[in-house]
Amino acid sequence: MSKGQETKERILQQTAELFNKQGYAGTSMSDIMQVTGLKKGGIYNHFQNKDELALQAFDYAVSLISYRYRIALLSKRNAIERLQGIVQVFVSYIDKPPLKGGCPLLNTAVESDHTHPALRKRAQEAMNSWYDMIRRVVQKGIRRGEISSDIDPEQVATVTIAIFEGGLMMTQLHDDPIYLKRAMTHLSQYIESFSPR
Amino acid sequence: MSKGQETKERILQQTAELFNKQGYAGTSMSDIMQVTGLKKGGIYNHFQNKDELALQAFDYAVSLISYRYRIALLSKRNAIERLQGIVQVFVSYIDKPPLKGGCPLLNTAVESDHTHPALRKRAQEAMNSWYDMIRRVVQKGIRRGEISSDIDPEQVATVTIAIFEGGLMMTQLHDDPIYLKRAMTHLSQYIESFSPR
Ligand SMILES: [Mg+2]
Ligand SMILES: [Mg+2]
Repeated sequence: MSKGQETKERILQQTAELFNKQGYAGTSMSDIMQVTGLKKGGIYNHFQNKDELALQAFDYAVSLISYRYRIALLSKRNAIERLQGIVQVFVSYIDKPPLKGGCPLLNTAVESDHTHPALRKRAQEAMNSWYDMIRRVVQKGIRRGEISSDIDPEQVATVTIAIFEGGLMMTQLHDDPIYLKRAMTHLSQYIESFSPR
Repeated sequence: MSKGQETKERILQQTAELFNKQGYAGTSMSDIMQVTGLKKGGIYNHFQNKDELALQAFDYAVSLISYRYRIALLSKRNAIERLQGIVQVFVSYIDKPPLKGGCPLLNTAVESDHTHPALRKRAQEAMNSWYDMIRRVVQKGIRRGEISSDIDPEQVATVTIAIFEGGLMMTQLHDDPIYLKRAMTHLSQYIESFSPR
């Protein structure tokens, strides 16, 4: 990696966390300069403007999360085990969050939905690809007879994401892991019920 | 209501929706002036500063929601029916949201948790009182034999709020009611499973 690429990567890393904690509207250029230790020109060398940086920082944050899912799914073939592996990634947010400040997808979705069309579109795409990953695990599980055929893959993808995001929000708000843990206990039991009888 | 109180009420109404859509950091004094049609002085007559207005606008938004729960619970005695009544309030966000921009509790929780201690405290209190309402419905249901005694009231309160907030976030992000509907189908089935066998 060239020196320029290294600097760019470091800016993305530092600002992804800053945006995740403070939001896009709540993060100023001077916050960005402070956290990176760079002057305005040093940042604009790599990104046209704050918006361009925000979009790339979001993609960077999403890549950190996607990586965890890929690792978690790598060693598991059975669909129920794969879904439980996803739950374990969710649980890992308690002790080893991919980045500080909660889930970048939730944070960005909530902030952008009425204010920032470009960022919202990114959040929609990230949500769709996450959703499709879960949906496909369920579909494949049904085809292989590992999951009962009366389970609706769209329903599972929706419930899985909803309960994780809601539980994580409660844990972030109260700074208490119990909420996400309870949400994950429920999700895990729900997934166990998919086995064909 | 005096003229002054009427103006204050109207400012709260208009800015509650504005904050709910744009966030606190994303809402400027000039946005507030524009939506209320008032000059800065006209707003400062009623609120010391933007922060004071934000806190009161949040309380106002929460009062709109609490009102719906009170109405929904008024006519129902059985605990399972009461919980399903709460689900019906959630479903009503699709066609008749209490205010535009999604759930003020979710929005405020996500925005304030790492940035705004006073607003975060308000969100924590609102979350606690909502949580306690659900928890108490379950506890009373268990005492009355309407809900199986192996159901954990804290678990139910957590799952109920998490799945609603997560489902609503997805619906807001995609501007599609299907996500909240699916989340509510799941919640409703979960609640039905509480009946003693
Ligand atoms: Mg929003
Ligand atoms: Mg936050």
